[in-house]
Amino acid sequence: MAPPPSTAVPPLAALVVRILTFICLIISVIILATNTIKASDGVNEAKLKFNHFYAYRYMLSTAVLGIAYTLIQSAFAIFHVSMGNRIGGDGLVQIEFYGDKIVSYILATGAAAGFGLSVDLNSLPVNGSDIEDFLNKANAAASLLFIGFLFSATSSVFSSLSLPKRS
Amino acid sequence: MAPPPSTAVPPLAALVVRILTFICLIISVIILATNTIKASDGVNEAKLKFNHFYAYRYMLSTAVLGIAYTLIQSAFAIFHVSMGNRIGGDGLVQIEFYGDKIVSYILATGAAAGFGLSVDLNSLPVNGSDIEDFLNKANAAASLLFIGFLFSATSSVFSSLSLPKRS
Repeated sequence: MAPPPSTAVPPLAALVVRILTFICLIISVIILATNTIKASDGVNEAKLKFNHFYAYRYMLSTAVLGIAYTLIQSAFAIFHVSMGNRIGGDGLVQIEFYGDKIVSYILATGAAAGFGLSVDLNSLPVNGSDIEDFLNKANAAASLLFIGFLFSATSSVFSSLSLPKRS
Repeated sequence: MAPPPSTAVPPLAALVVRILTFICLIISVIILATNTIKASDGVNEAKLKFNHFYAYRYMLSTAVLGIAYTLIQSAFAIFHVSMGNRIGGDGLVQIEFYGDKIVSYILATGAAAGFGLSVDLNSLPVNGSDIEDFLNKANAAASLLFIGFLFSATSSVFSSLSLPKRS
């Protein structure tokens, strides 16, 4: 399928990248949101959930925002692939350009905040094997969010390349 | 000063944003690198430095990388402002586009990793006023790195808008 002359990037490629972003983000949210353990140090017992940590809460927020944005853009991309032209023309290309940039930055910060906390929590001496499990799952969620960010950064490169000709 | 026809963004504006990025990053590095306290809980005494935490070490690395990249790009921007044309033509515009994107993402993750750790360290019950000082300085460094990232993201928008016409 040859790309139509109105874009620099084949619309099917743009759609595939959006779908990959969506899949990574949704799995990341599921892993993070279901990450609950009962931690015990022999004396005290406590339930540990992701929302006890600000960094993981922020991570979840960024992933949910990313999912919402990616869904909307996927809808436009599906229209573009099936109809062969864009909704909204060059105005929407501008919105997509800034939207992709902002959302990909937000996803990058979400993954980094999660890693930033996990890595140093991991090096604390208080860890039990339950807590290690918890941190490993949090790291898995952050990794998937990071992969989602990479796809979203790819979308951002695509939408930059699709910008209308400068005057 | 009217912009030459070969760019969408006035070169002086691009240079000013580079310089602002540089200033923010250099202050962030100074604050972070000089952030040392002697923490004491009454029994044990220990010297606390930024490099005891992986997240802060990563933060410093990203800021240093950002400074190096911004210096190089500032040199090109100064040439552009003073001579009125670019070194390297459209090839360099491409490199600038991808370079700006990658470096601004790296700076975003650096700031977020720092915040991700500080915010949750702050909520731990073990804090003394010395440790609060330490975390406040780390937060100040992360904030400046974040502002530096915002300028660097602006550079990235500029370099996207300056991309050569698509064929």
